[in-house]
Amino acid sequence: MIRTHDAGTLRASDAGTTVTLAGWVARRRDHGGVIFVDLRDASGVVQVVFREEDAHALRNEFCVKVVGEVNARPAGNENPDLATGEIEVVASELTVLSEAAPLPLPVDDTITASDDLRLKYRYLDLRRSGPAKALRLRSRANQIAREVLHARDFNEIETPTLTRSTPEGARDFLVPVRLQPGTWYALPQSPQLFKQLLMVGGLERYYQIARCYRDEDFRADRQPEFTQLDIEMSFVTQEDIIELGEEIVSRLWSELADYQVQLPIPRITWTDAMNRYGSDKPDLRYGVELVELTDYLRGTAFRVFAGAIDAGGYVGAVVMPGGAAQTRKELDGWQDWAKARGARGLAYVVLDAETGEPKGPVAKNLSAEHLSGLADQVGAKPGDAVFFAAANERREAQELLGAARIEIAKRAKLIDESSWAFCWVVDAPMFEKTDEGGWTAVHHPFTSPNEEWIDTFESAPDKALAYAYDIVVNGNEIGGGSVRIHRADVQSRVFDLLGITPEEAADKFGFLLEAFKYGPPPHAGIALGWDRTCMLLSGNESIREVIAFPKTRGGFDPLTTAPTPITAQQRLEAGIDAKPKAAAGTPGTDGQAAPVQHSN
Amino acid sequence: MIRTHDAGTLRASDAGTTVTLAGWVARRRDHGGVIFVDLRDASGVVQVVFREEDAHALRNEFCVKVVGEVNARPAGNENPDLATGEIEVVASELTVLSEAAPLPLPVDDTITASDDLRLKYRYLDLRRSGPAKALRLRSRANQIAREVLHARDFNEIETPTLTRSTPEGARDFLVPVRLQPGTWYALPQSPQLFKQLLMVGGLERYYQIARCYRDEDFRADRQPEFTQLDIEMSFVTQEDIIELGEEIVSRLWSELADYQVQLPIPRITWTDAMNRYGSDKPDLRYGVELVELTDYLRGTAFRVFAGAIDAGGYVGAVVMPGGAAQTRKELDGWQDWAKARGARGLAYVVLDAETGEPKGPVAKNLSAEHLSGLADQVGAKPGDAVFFAAANERREAQELLGAARIEIAKRAKLIDESSWAFCWVVDAPMFEKTDEGGWTAVHHPFTSPNEEWIDTFESAPDKALAYAYDIVVNGNEIGGGSVRIHRADVQSRVFDLLGITPEEAADKFGFLLEAFKYGPPPHAGIALGWDRTCMLLSGNESIREVIAFPKTRGGFDPLTTAPTPITAQQRLEAGIDAKPKAAAGTPGTDGQAAPVQHSN
Repeated sequence: MIRTHDAGTLRASDAGTTVTLAGWVARRRDHGGVIFVDLRDASGVVQVVFREEDAHALRNEFCVKVVGEVNARPAGNENPDLATGEIEVVASELTVLSEAAPLPLPVDDTITASDDLRLKYRYLDLRRSGPAKALRLRSRANQIAREVLHARDFNEIETPTLTRSTPEGARDFLVPVRLQPGTWYALPQSPQLFKQLLMVGGLERYYQIARCYRDEDFRADRQPEFTQLDIEMSFVTQEDIIELGEEIVSRLWSELADYQVQLPIPRITWTDAMNRYGSDKPDLRYGVELVELTDYLRGTAFRVFAGAIDAGGYVGAVVMPGGAAQTRKELDGWQDWAKARGARGLAYVVLDAETGEPKGPVAKNLSAEHLSGLADQVGAKPGDAVFFAAANERREAQELLGAARIEIAKRAKLIDESSWAFCWVVDAPMFEKTDEGGWTAVHHPFTSPNEEWIDTFESAPDKALAYAYDIVVNGNEIGGGSVRIHRADVQSRVFDLLGITPEEAADKFGFLLEAFKYGPPPHAGIALGWDRTCMLLSGNESIREVIAFPKTRGGFDPLTTAPTPITAQQRLEAGIDAKPKAAAGTPGTDGQAAPVQHSN
Repeated sequence: MIRTHDAGTLRASDAGTTVTLAGWVARRRDHGGVIFVDLRDASGVVQVVFREEDAHALRNEFCVKVVGEVNARPAGNENPDLATGEIEVVASELTVLSEAAPLPLPVDDTITASDDLRLKYRYLDLRRSGPAKALRLRSRANQIAREVLHARDFNEIETPTLTRSTPEGARDFLVPVRLQPGTWYALPQSPQLFKQLLMVGGLERYYQIARCYRDEDFRADRQPEFTQLDIEMSFVTQEDIIELGEEIVSRLWSELADYQVQLPIPRITWTDAMNRYGSDKPDLRYGVELVELTDYLRGTAFRVFAGAIDAGGYVGAVVMPGGAAQTRKELDGWQDWAKARGARGLAYVVLDAETGEPKGPVAKNLSAEHLSGLADQVGAKPGDAVFFAAANERREAQELLGAARIEIAKRAKLIDESSWAFCWVVDAPMFEKTDEGGWTAVHHPFTSPNEEWIDTFESAPDKALAYAYDIVVNGNEIGGGSVRIHRADVQSRVFDLLGITPEEAADKFGFLLEAFKYGPPPHAGIALGWDRTCMLLSGNESIREVIAFPKTRGGFDPLTTAPTPITAQQRLEAGIDAKPKAAAGTPGTDGQAAPVQHSN
């Protein structure tokens, strides 16, 4: 080691010791013949005192080595805000290890810079305490998860990232294969199929902190590559996975966020979550529940509500405590908010703070009877506002109310930002209707129906429930999983319902279905979104803060300027424009799961 | 859990307990009204006894759940080869969890199958004890390395895998970017540049078990994606990295191969390794050193040797103990062996086992004086064979002798297969000549010259030494690293020598050079080839054995049949054929390290 001590570890008890330190010039103050330098390394900061003639060339972020003696600071000069504040190092030798040009991004925790600038000079950004701390926290989070899993005999197993294009939700990133011109690998959206194959292979307990890839349109805070803590177990039920998930989460929050998660974490069914919170990832840090009014308002003359009720739809409301005090402009703002979400507007009634009398545009349209019972029905008090939503599709109206609920909590300052509210959302539906009138899997087509529905899901696909579970904290889904189908008969019935023909199934998942012929064990798993989990643990609001070298929107990296054009030579060599050979020529396929070539 | 006990953990002390087990039918033996089944799960095997009528449908690899009572086996029926051999489970309930079709690959440790078959049915292969054990060992190896590194305050940090094409040795795999049509990411050949940026960023101690990608022609036992344990530290010297490497290696071998590595691991300079063993990764499990004869044979009339000597080249020899006893056919075989390696042949002399008289084709060409002193000069005894090599390039001849040395050890059975011989190869050369007469970096262009050469490497590039070190065991390089250049002046002198212009350097490594303007710390690192390390630890002879889903030659995966053709739709969507926009349009590049577009 070039140094004998870490700068941030020096204490009064080290006084008198000669130390060699190495780090960066964080701050320099000239003081009449003497120069004070805050020397920073990974452990922290210490004050170093130089004679002016020795250190006049030092500028911020020079990398230096210093030999000096630890001295107690003169009485009255101690800095109680600094762990090393009782001492200073009086330098006897200075070596400049490397110089620093004027900084495009000051290494200063108090300065706010644009994301583009921070990412272009990420190596300077990481010298600031916040960003470095976030990466250190993430490293420790990995370690905690691994401790839990290894204590339970899990095996950490790497699965391929150059693999076969699969037809899951998002688009695959593709990789041309020079040695088999005209063919392509895909980067995996998750290790899902491989971890199920490992279960068929008898490994029983698998985990991986796995890199995954999705070529999605960049919404806020998406990255083309992301990481999940991926887990799969054999011979278990939903209860076992939930219990494991709870240990991981409680260990993480206990050690990294100083919060003791109360176990067991409460569970709410998917249907309850939608009915009460209008969301499948409810934020339980505050109340403000949805109230269904479909029955209460039956018979109303108000066209908007009556239309939904007559169509077998849904009318509901959510209360904003104190919402009657909003200005006209604030109430109009809610209409803009609703329109920005694609709704036509947000009907409301305000209850007079003194009399409780319902007022506002909707009040005019409701009968006296409906109005008089409304406050009781929705649990509102004088001075509150009541927001309504109605739609032919229950979910559509509930999701609007659920979004309004979140917005209410923000505007009415109902959120205790220091609190953590965890829940499991369980009993998710197996299927949802497609726009074309068929069915699609809510999770993925390998998710098992629960015991109650396994033999009958075809009879009411809209009601059939899965052994699928999501873990939610403060309205963020941080993980989810399911029990998988391991019975061939159940799997083919699910494919039938989804309109996937045996030929299509063989083409898309042939190798998995083939594997399931040979004694697959019951198995289940979970994946935690690791970027988001670490973001929450570190108190950040973007996953970029817990990624060493994140990309901006559009997948651009301001640091390396990736992606870039390629040369004609690279294009030629990679076989990008080669015609694939006939599939029959591919070795070892034997027809099953072979790459079928349509006329393209 | 579906089970109450792991099958392999049951012992005599469990007798009388009712247990629920779950696993696979490993073997079935019918025995007059009773069926014995070996039930296998991840923990091992136990014998289960069924009444014939309960279990007649069971076949190999059915996945079953069994409830039964643990009984001591009848006296005389114990199986001392089995950990559970003192007991058996008498079944009272059987549930078939899933059936197994006739097996294309028997789950039987004694059966040898082709690699293609094993990989196509990898999930059956993994049920065999050897393959499963290899994956478990690898998981444990990860854990051990992480324990060492976390105890030393290393941070595990993920670096991007969708990044910028870099001009290192091998070809990059490329990924088209749909959102920026006409541009491509590259998959990283290693995290080298990013880990150096993390050091500039002040993280000081980084590690990652990192997936890397090289689009190389498949030689034996190469995979397009591979894994390295990647480490980088700041404010350290070569000694610190070597000491850390030794702790990791000694912990791994102690726990996983039951071998105590003697520390410190011996070091040999690169030049000594070449001179004595004809290899930069010498196998030190046996002697058989090379002997240089350039001076001894100076003046010989034998044209092959004289030519090399006169050209300032090298003549040397290696002794095969007992090699004189080889048949004519065996000796001719050496010529074929040498030709297969691209040499013209392998000159030799055999020493008569009785008289020590030198015989053979080369003997006729050497003077009586050269012949009479030869045995002493090369350290050969009567009955030995002496193989010669001569070339204008010292390294070429030494490498031929080095390969002969390995072959001698095999043929003469000099290798103790149970032994481990570690060494560090240090003081590697900085540069080697290119075919065009210029210089290329032996490691990579960021490798630091050592203290002795840092100011003068231009004066004798062929002699300049680097702070570069490889760790070698039994002739396998399992890791290597270097101290990196952190001084801008040294880096540009190295680029000058390598013929890289400032413009080229900016185009290729601009973002790293830019980072090095801002106080980069001295730093150094190492990467262990994790596939190979785990292969050696597990006693396997192919890295495929320690990879869950490896590919065959040519990068084909017999299981998923990746890679595959893509559809016209995928091709269109991915923007594979889009023309890139002008580079000036790329956001945030500001000229430095921008994607320069030549007329292509």
